Amino acid sequence: MLMQTHEARLAALRTELEKRGLDGFVVPISDEHMSEYIGGYAQRLAWLTGFGGSAGTVVVLKDKAAIFVDGRYTVQVREQVDGKLFEYQSVPATSPAKWLSENAPEGARIGYDAWLHSKGWVDATSDALRRHRGELVAVDGNPIDAVWADRPEPSLAPAIVHDDALSGRSSADKRAEVADWLKAEGYDAAVISALDSVAWLLNIRGSDVERTPVALSYVIAHADGTADLFIAQEKVTPELTQHLGNAVTIRPRSAFEGALGEMNGQTVAVDPSYGVAAIYQALEAGGAKAVATRDPTILPRAVKNPVEQQGQRDAQARDGAAIAKFLHWLSVEGPKGQLDELSVAAQLRKFRDESDILRDLSFDTISAAGPHAALPHYRVDEDSNLPIAPGSIFLCDSGGQYIDGTTDITRTVWIGPGEPSAEEKDRFTRVLKGHIAIDRAVFPEGTPGGALDSFARQFLWAGGVDYAHGTGHGVGSFLMVHEGPQRIAKVGGAQAGSDQPLMAGMILSNEPGYYKEGAYGIRIENLVLVVEKDIANAEGTFFGFETLTFAPIDRTLVDTSLLTSDEIEWWNAYHAKVRAILAPQLSGDVLAWLEHACQPL
Amino acid sequence: MLMQTHEARLAALRTELEKRGLDGFVVPISDEHMSEYIGGYAQRLAWLTGFGGSAGTVVVLKDKAAIFVDGRYTVQVREQVDGKLFEYQSVPATSPAKWLSENAPEGARIGYDAWLHSKGWVDATSDALRRHRGELVAVDGNPIDAVWADRPEPSLAPAIVHDDALSGRSSADKRAEVADWLKAEGYDAAVISALDSVAWLLNIRGSDVERTPVALSYVIAHADGTADLFIAQEKVTPELTQHLGNAVTIRPRSAFEGALGEMNGQTVAVDPSYGVAAIYQALEAGGAKAVATRDPTILPRAVKNPVEQQGQRDAQARDGAAIAKFLHWLSVEGPKGQLDELSVAAQLRKFRDESDILRDLSFDTISAAGPHAALPHYRVDEDSNLPIAPGSIFLCDSGGQYIDGTTDITRTVWIGPGEPSAEEKDRFTRVLKGHIAIDRAVFPEGTPGGALDSFARQFLWAGGVDYAHGTGHGVGSFLMVHEGPQRIAKVGGAQAGSDQPLMAGMILSNEPGYYKEGAYGIRIENLVLVVEKDIANAEGTFFGFETLTFAPIDRTLVDTSLLTSDEIEWWNAYHAKVRAILAPQLSGDVLAWLEHACQPL
Repeated sequence: MLMQTHEARLAALRTELEKRGLDGFVVPISDEHMSEYIGGYAQRLAWLTGFGGSAGTVVVLKDKAAIFVDGRYTVQVREQVDGKLFEYQSVPATSPAKWLSENAPEGARIGYDAWLHSKGWVDATSDALRRHRGELVAVDGNPIDAVWADRPEPSLAPAIVHDDALSGRSSADKRAEVADWLKAEGYDAAVISALDSVAWLLNIRGSDVERTPVALSYVIAHADGTADLFIAQEKVTPELTQHLGNAVTIRPRSAFEGALGEMNGQTVAVDPSYGVAAIYQALEAGGAKAVATRDPTILPRAVKNPVEQQGQRDAQARDGAAIAKFLHWLSVEGPKGQLDELSVAAQLRKFRDESDILRDLSFDTISAAGPHAALPHYRVDEDSNLPIAPGSIFLCDSGGQYIDGTTDITRTVWIGPGEPSAEEKDRFTRVLKGHIAIDRAVFPEGTPGGALDSFARQFLWAGGVDYAHGTGHGVGSFLMVHEGPQRIAKVGGAQAGSDQPLMAGMILSNEPGYYKEGAYGIRIENLVLVVEKDIANAEGTFFGFETLTFAPIDRTLVDTSLLTSDEIEWWNAYHAKVRAILAPQLSGDVLAWLEHACQPL
Repeated sequence: MLMQTHEARLAALRTELEKRGLDGFVVPISDEHMSEYIGGYAQRLAWLTGFGGSAGTVVVLKDKAAIFVDGRYTVQVREQVDGKLFEYQSVPATSPAKWLSENAPEGARIGYDAWLHSKGWVDATSDALRRHRGELVAVDGNPIDAVWADRPEPSLAPAIVHDDALSGRSSADKRAEVADWLKAEGYDAAVISALDSVAWLLNIRGSDVERTPVALSYVIAHADGTADLFIAQEKVTPELTQHLGNAVTIRPRSAFEGALGEMNGQTVAVDPSYGVAAIYQALEAGGAKAVATRDPTILPRAVKNPVEQQGQRDAQARDGAAIAKFLHWLSVEGPKGQLDELSVAAQLRKFRDESDILRDLSFDTISAAGPHAALPHYRVDEDSNLPIAPGSIFLCDSGGQYIDGTTDITRTVWIGPGEPSAEEKDRFTRVLKGHIAIDRAVFPEGTPGGALDSFARQFLWAGGVDYAHGTGHGVGSFLMVHEGPQRIAKVGGAQAGSDQPLMAGMILSNEPGYYKEGAYGIRIENLVLVVEKDIANAEGTFFGFETLTFAPIDRTLVDTSLLTSDEIEWWNAYHAKVRAILAPQLSGDVLAWLEHACQPL
């Protein structure tokens, strides 16, 4: 089949818009569930422009078009997208709404797909256009789908039962909790549209979205504890039907919109961060009252039960062994100078694949050599692939989706021969000190992650540097590697969640870093579990962290003269535990390497 | 004159309300400027109830009345206010609006004085009443004033010129900055109703409010750089008139409301935190458009210029000498067992009064023995006055209003003979470590105080304890001892300002503490100045603190085994500077005491 150019695709879209009487169209990177990662069938912006980033928006008008990306993608968008077809715009400096209000002709009718945008976006953009006498118009069927000849179908992979032995709690019990909440708050039902919320609530998993073990579906949860699951019939197995039982009615995914229209007179909770505008519109058109409120599964999902906690520990121990094999291999092969970012990522995958309960990676491995490591969100591909140079820093951020837990770990290592520079050791050690400060933090009940963030940065700040990302995100249990609502990040920053009080049972990453543009990057990441601390004579309840991730940190990069005795003690205790957990899983050269890597500082 | 009982006062108020056709009345602790400290003429709630706290509200209905106070005053309100006349209510659990909606009869007309409430309060309370078919009615003249026979007159003390040599910047220059802001934002004028804002903008001071050197007045600042000052004619001296010059029109304070009504067609900025509802109502009734926005003097006032910074240093050095004399005196007299909280506060005042440029204290001295020290906001009076027991902890939080700077310092000392307990030393040392962590903090431009707060608490948290107040507040220059907008406090807490980025030139207190109910209290407070740090190879601008307050910290209470070498170094450097700054001002026994107190740990 002939590969269509982006110019031809854009022209085809414009013809389709013309046919529909539209003066323009907005293309987000989004799906019907406002997912962070989206399936191939929903990659409309990539199809239209060639852009491979995970966040961005395109606006197409009759005579011009623009692509809006944030600071992470300023370079990438220029490499991947033709500036003659799409002018480059930066958010938040210029929002699509602002650009539209300045560039759309007066009275323009701009189309949007109500299944791909939040209600908040629709309201704000409508307002911006109205001031210009324009109009935002919901389309009936996405016009890109009409001209996208070889568009992939949404996945029809079967939904999988996530056993209670892994989830630690029955779906009936979870639905009862949601039902209690609905009754207490005065709602008749809640629309659960986030894919991981559906997966958690019904104890099901899937393989419809890369890196996230979820099944494309919606739930309407009712105040009596019953639920409707909307899912493609092809995905429903007899095991699933039996697992869901009588209280969950399985309905075709295509019946979802209609079902929303039949809730006349009901008060329905919809999370504005995950419920697309079309859900609100369908509810209201059918005479229901849609109330924007937080998805009631989010907080109970974030607080891991004892079974999930133990699953995480087991998954981490298994993953740590794969990482140890990988780091040993890297220490042998790296100095030979034959490796590159892709081959290293592939080898790491092989070590993880040795486990028969690995279902996927939890995200695309960040295998970053030299200057690429200075890009915190770097993704390697054939075009970008750099050799791993002996005598340089290499950063690897990776994770696995095991059926008992989702892992996420970053190690930054020195590729010999030779020695890191004094500056590299200084920066690495400041990052390490921040990592230790988070790991050892003690804080009262009610403390949000934002109150801990500075602990991670203080030593970098003292050196006149910082890092431009959060310190920690929530992590799911065989679910999304980025899971809310909690976060350790700067207060008042762009990322939500730093004001969510941490609760015992929540899992977070602890990943301070340092990035020297064009030169190198450093990040040290473990996962931690919020646990109650037993302190003599404590006044109130205090929390701290249990470390979950165990793999050696590269001592070559440490300047021990910058560490306090408490920090050295932390290092030694951590590595003693790394050895205790990993040694039984290793042998031969790898075990010898581990023993050496875990010796006291 | 016969002292009227509170029962009689309440009855008189009810008769007055009856006469005006009102079913109730709301009495806040407030003045026409929403001041933190209010003059005697505005102490209507205290007159009505006997309550002496600084925050609270009373609601009077025909057959019942209630007093609403926060957690600080739960005990005090029961001691001072007759529960048969006023039922006790706790905010935020029960707001006056909520209580009114539950207790006022349907259709009730509840009066309020629009000169004493914010617009936000009026809107919210009106809504709450409307749901009950009731009505919130602005009174014409406060009904308490009609029945308060011996009500003090507002002060008529002269307004005083605050010389440019002390303010560091002319009023014309400040007005030009405000005018530029008004033009840039599209306003015609701003109403400046906070007393310290008026004082800063016009470089005037006064003595109308205890502990705060301000003059009762309002300003309307215009976009052309001119201003109208509304002030009682008795307060206007020839010096003041000359100082203000032609661009500032002096008008009677009583003409203010009328002037607001003459701004037809103008767009006027009013700060919703300081502009009372009456200002909005008068503007809107006169055809002006009132826009709620931050008082434009607040940020420039918070950023101290070099002259103000030097004035602070000079005031602190002078104040530190008074504190040193006081601490020496306490070390001699305390162990004799003859002192009490009042006599100690009086002696401290004497040492401060040795300066001829002290104009007042900056707040009522917190002279707190034993269990009283566990109440962070304790104020001593004849009834509460406790002896200072030898062999106990004594806490003193105090400050002076010098014409070149406002001071605020807390020292917690051991009163001999004997030794503090291990627990007392442990807690004191954890507070000290937090104090040092704030003093030594380095942070990037843009960091809010909320991001630093945990530095002060981390060592207490590790010990399973905390303190229930903020870590630092802004401080004025010969103005209010509590000045916004910046604050070091828990993020998302009740106190505003923890999200304000710190800027070079801002002054803050650094005052972590620990309070053991019924036993003792600890607080160590210095003032600090935000300064730019010079860091080799820094990426961006970084800030830190210059310590402003110099007086010995009591080494008797320190457990040096809990200090790191960096912290001991801080202590020694700090006390070397204390000695260098104070020794030239002291002699004899006090100097010998200082030399000893400042020896290295």
